[in-house]
Amino acid sequence: MNFDAIFYPKSVAIVGASREIGSVGNTLVKNMVSGKFTGEVYCVNPHATEIEGIPCFPNLTAIGKPIACVIIAVKAPIVASIIKEAHACGIPAAIIISAGFKEEGGEGIQRENELIQLVKEYDMTVIGPNCLGILNPPYAMNASFAPDMPSVGGAAFVSQSGALCTAVIDYAKHLNLGFSKFVSIGNKACVNEVDLFTYFAQDDATRVVMAYIEDVEHTDRFLEAAYKLTHGANAKPVLLLKSGKTDAGKRASVSHTGALGGNNIYYDALFRQSGVLRVDTIPELFTAASAFLYNKLPEGNRTAVVTNAGGPGILVTDAAVDSGLSVPTLTTTTCSLLTKTVSTITHCNNPIDLLGDATTDRYEKALTAVCADDAIDAMLVLLTPQGGTPITEIAKSIVEVKKTTDKPIIVSFMGQYRVLPGVDILKKGNVAVCDYPEDAAKALGLLAKFAKIAKENHREIHGPIIPTTQPFQTGFVPEYQALKLLGEYGLPVVKSGFVTSPSDAKTLIRMIGVPCAMKIVSPDITHKSDVGGVLLDVTENIVEQSYKNMMQTVQKNAPHAKLEGVLLAEMVKEKGIELIIGAARDPVFGVVIMVGFGGVTVEVFNDIAFGISPISQKDTLDMLNELHMKKLFDHFRGGPEYDRLSIVHMIQKVEQLMLEHQEISELDINPCILMPDGKNAKIVDVRIAVK
Amino acid sequence: MNFDAIFYPKSVAIVGASREIGSVGNTLVKNMVSGKFTGEVYCVNPHATEIEGIPCFPNLTAIGKPIACVIIAVKAPIVASIIKEAHACGIPAAIIISAGFKEEGGEGIQRENELIQLVKEYDMTVIGPNCLGILNPPYAMNASFAPDMPSVGGAAFVSQSGALCTAVIDYAKHLNLGFSKFVSIGNKACVNEVDLFTYFAQDDATRVVMAYIEDVEHTDRFLEAAYKLTHGANAKPVLLLKSGKTDAGKRASVSHTGALGGNNIYYDALFRQSGVLRVDTIPELFTAASAFLYNKLPEGNRTAVVTNAGGPGILVTDAAVDSGLSVPTLTTTTCSLLTKTVSTITHCNNPIDLLGDATTDRYEKALTAVCADDAIDAMLVLLTPQGGTPITEIAKSIVEVKKTTDKPIIVSFMGQYRVLPGVDILKKGNVAVCDYPEDAAKALGLLAKFAKIAKENHREIHGPIIPTTQPFQTGFVPEYQALKLLGEYGLPVVKSGFVTSPSDAKTLIRMIGVPCAMKIVSPDITHKSDVGGVLLDVTENIVEQSYKNMMQTVQKNAPHAKLEGVLLAEMVKEKGIELIIGAARDPVFGVVIMVGFGGVTVEVFNDIAFGISPISQKDTLDMLNELHMKKLFDHFRGGPEYDRLSIVHMIQKVEQLMLEHQEISELDINPCILMPDGKNAKIVDVRIAVK
Repeated sequence: MNFDAIFYPKSVAIVGASREIGSVGNTLVKNMVSGKFTGEVYCVNPHATEIEGIPCFPNLTAIGKPIACVIIAVKAPIVASIIKEAHACGIPAAIIISAGFKEEGGEGIQRENELIQLVKEYDMTVIGPNCLGILNPPYAMNASFAPDMPSVGGAAFVSQSGALCTAVIDYAKHLNLGFSKFVSIGNKACVNEVDLFTYFAQDDATRVVMAYIEDVEHTDRFLEAAYKLTHGANAKPVLLLKSGKTDAGKRASVSHTGALGGNNIYYDALFRQSGVLRVDTIPELFTAASAFLYNKLPEGNRTAVVTNAGGPGILVTDAAVDSGLSVPTLTTTTCSLLTKTVSTITHCNNPIDLLGDATTDRYEKALTAVCADDAIDAMLVLLTPQGGTPITEIAKSIVEVKKTTDKPIIVSFMGQYRVLPGVDILKKGNVAVCDYPEDAAKALGLLAKFAKIAKENHREIHGPIIPTTQPFQTGFVPEYQALKLLGEYGLPVVKSGFVTSPSDAKTLIRMIGVPCAMKIVSPDITHKSDVGGVLLDVTENIVEQSYKNMMQTVQKNAPHAKLEGVLLAEMVKEKGIELIIGAARDPVFGVVIMVGFGGVTVEVFNDIAFGISPISQKDTLDMLNELHMKKLFDHFRGGPEYDRLSIVHMIQKVEQLMLEHQEISELDINPCILMPDGKNAKIVDVRIAVK
Repeated sequence: MNFDAIFYPKSVAIVGASREIGSVGNTLVKNMVSGKFTGEVYCVNPHATEIEGIPCFPNLTAIGKPIACVIIAVKAPIVASIIKEAHACGIPAAIIISAGFKEEGGEGIQRENELIQLVKEYDMTVIGPNCLGILNPPYAMNASFAPDMPSVGGAAFVSQSGALCTAVIDYAKHLNLGFSKFVSIGNKACVNEVDLFTYFAQDDATRVVMAYIEDVEHTDRFLEAAYKLTHGANAKPVLLLKSGKTDAGKRASVSHTGALGGNNIYYDALFRQSGVLRVDTIPELFTAASAFLYNKLPEGNRTAVVTNAGGPGILVTDAAVDSGLSVPTLTTTTCSLLTKTVSTITHCNNPIDLLGDATTDRYEKALTAVCADDAIDAMLVLLTPQGGTPITEIAKSIVEVKKTTDKPIIVSFMGQYRVLPGVDILKKGNVAVCDYPEDAAKALGLLAKFAKIAKENHREIHGPIIPTTQPFQTGFVPEYQALKLLGEYGLPVVKSGFVTSPSDAKTLIRMIGVPCAMKIVSPDITHKSDVGGVLLDVTENIVEQSYKNMMQTVQKNAPHAKLEGVLLAEMVKEKGIELIIGAARDPVFGVVIMVGFGGVTVEVFNDIAFGISPISQKDTLDMLNELHMKKLFDHFRGGPEYDRLSIVHMIQKVEQLMLEHQEISELDINPCILMPDGKNAKIVDVRIAVK
């Protein structure tokens, strides 16, 4: 894609430019020319010769000069003709502001599909339709109808909601957040967040990516692009606000941009696997972005709290721990340094309480001490505006300390009135500052989390996929075949087999060597036990007679059923932990894997975690870490150890199986009995559905 | 207590008044006289005759006029002598600013205890020590060293942290929050939050109570006072920020005000039972307070979202649902009204999206329509500042609509710059307005929650407590006695008995009528099964022989043990749900009751809930509602029903038992097997510890 033509066009034409004050077509022209944009700007409007001082042409062709990007704000039905004309003029890129496409349903969907076809054919780079436009603050370009230009900085913002963009620009003014690129992707018919992630990965102006999205259409491409962006030496954090978490929210989302939503727990898995940081609220998005912009990543999560107020110190400590940080007791070295340099400190604690009458000197000494402490990775600094508090002096001192350290410092000067002069100094000094202490803790928590993510490198891919040449038939795969299939993939199924005579049954049970369950095999019988088709604890001595009896009984109870034989399967008597492993094929997410605690508890506690294919070993371990049952794995209450890696391998084999058997829509292993101390797990039962 | 002398004194003396600019003693004088306080103010300082224009006396006695309240800011060791002098002068109340008491440990603790004794003896009303002071904005009195006077309004604020007070006043300026009373309780040696809750209950100026606390010392009094405050016709919400949730936070709390913290889950139970709304963060505290101040309580939780931006509409819908609200589809009546009056609405949805170019007229029509809808209880209104958005006009229109309705309206004008003129209009018009949409949803959620709480009236108390005259001895109560005790309290224990001969055993097992477990009874044996002292499935036929065998075996294995006989107890074969019920005596909270899911899952999932005595039927039902296992009670997956009330009754009987047997420190019923369809539960095992 040609993003240079979108973000750094040397010449722009606005089709649908208008003289009507307040209209979109007029605002677009004003925004392009009222700033310091240095490129050429042309208007296209057959009824005018000049708009806002810019020459106006009846059509694109009439301009007669090379155009890099066309901004389109005409009625939806004629957008396609403008794209055609643009192509004919050799214009490589377009920003379509016009609404009236997918989001309207009906004809609009068809209109959007036709547009997509056209753009593909022409190989153009097109933003929108139904969007606010784009802004490139470093290039002084406001190619949108947003009323303000945000300041220049390191954050790129992508939004599936145009209106949110205007609010974001307004908040950002207050929050000292500057932007490298600002993109309203609208219906994202041609360019979506994935394309932009790829672009931002190599855009030097961008250091943090912020995104608001309502759905992801190509989850595999998303996973790949976001993973690349968030990992490695040049890793950039992606802070993502995804709406439609709840059913009511999803309903609203469908009626907004026609986004289909999809399953929220699958999204959580997608974001976890791609290293994206999901935030829950708009203020979280902002405070995290500024924390990332103004700090290097911490080495770890060990945090010192420095404060002139005890109560807020406790509150921020609670919030820090809730955000995954630790607030450890300080080392004796730091303690003796603190008691020596800060006269008011007699007992050494973390939070470091500098007391209500704290001076600049105390702040500086305390901060310097923890900066020098190898057992501290980051600092949270609070200030309350008490009578004699030298607010601006303390702010200056924090700015100075910040210059001397690579450790993150996030500050909250509490209040929104007396503290403002200090807050201004902090902002100008490139110190991340939050309105409330809890926000600071949350933002630092994300920094520590991302520091871990960026270092990982685990996107190894499953083995080569060899699609099966003999797919199963629609319906449920017979149990013995399902077990056999799992066995072929190296999954630890119980010993079992399908036999068609009493003597074969005897031979088989001798090979299995332990008491078996016997189950009738018939394509016509669903509820086997209802017709006497299940028998437990069958031993070698009675197996032949049992075979005959079962055949007779079932024949009597289900006279029209075709009886093919019986399945004999080892019965597991050893005690272990019941696991369930499931796989499904989702229309949006592709192969989705589930793992969780089996037995009755599944339904009560829903102790399950999801992963999206392609799934790495690290992803699987992350899934296990989300389970409450993980406690059981490691010598729980003096019990044995269970091997997590064996679960990882099972999950990867299930994934492989699902990828090679595209006909399988669902697979449920329940239960898989995990055995302690390195013994093999045993898969007792599996149900496979084919669509 | 004489709170009139604290909050509305006609004359005040400041002991420790100082001429030194910036000192506490000087700031106190300035704060008292620089506003519009109309009472008399006297300074006490032997080294001055006048401070800040106020006459100065060498001591209290020398003033020679009646004083209602003395503010004390002298060194800790002489505070007691000032209190003595104040008493001698007939002064009924004091505010002790001075630090150097409990929070310092050592001598300070003793000093505080002496102070408490003195104040009790004199029957004085004393705030502090170690506090910022108090402010009564409606009475124009700033009896604190806080640098600013907050504006007048309906919120009372109580804080265990003085420094937080200064920040709160600073935030409040920005947030349009006015105060009726503002109290820094410091070490709360004499007056604590409970006393103030009782005062605020009858203080007409107070409509909402905000509190920051680090510990509760008298949980029984807290429960009673907070319950009274938050229930009934004159119910007032209590918004409470309690720090020390995490271990690191608790550690910080001990070193701050010497508060002992206590168990966070017990605090949650205490707040739930007393109707207090616990908030997690400072911004939540503020947004909720202003939401309560400017709105009546809603009838229910059905919320309409009105917005000019789709994306934020979805975000706020998610947040609303997360906060316990519902965002239902609109009635056909309202839909047809909307499509008729708002030209741009073709599809009727909730959120009601008025589109980016929304006019004042659209907002007004949409709001009017949902106000008139009986199926909507409250409104969340969003605005993003788009190009032509008439921000101030829309704000005015919301203010007008608000005047016509009793339904809560909470607004977020998104941004912190362009929207400010609109926000000002809303604030002046007494409309609750939040910086971010998610905050608005959270605040409305608390309104709906409190509307339910205020209407409840369930503080019925347990039966009369008749303390036992024959307490058990220290150690573990023998199992047969423990079961017998539970039986005496009407708890459904399994049939069981203690016998001392084979023939008695036979008689007993005949009465029990089903197979029994037989367990040796000996004060000297802890691990019964290790010495052959447990036998299952004992029937009438074999019971005599089994008795003899067990006696012999145990005698052989534990030759020095005194064998008293055996316990025979019914074995439960029916299937049911395993419940655990526990009780403990906590040094802070008194009798604490626990209920949860039994079996292996207890330890993995911790599916347990707590209650504090006195515990009502409603409290117990609330506890059950906190359990995941509650799903199992009501025909889970086509299963039977389990009677919640039977659990309620068991818990109440356990509470009664704990109250009457003060010697019991812990009681664990595990398992209690719940039987379906109204059958009696069966308590199989109980362990009682006596201290």
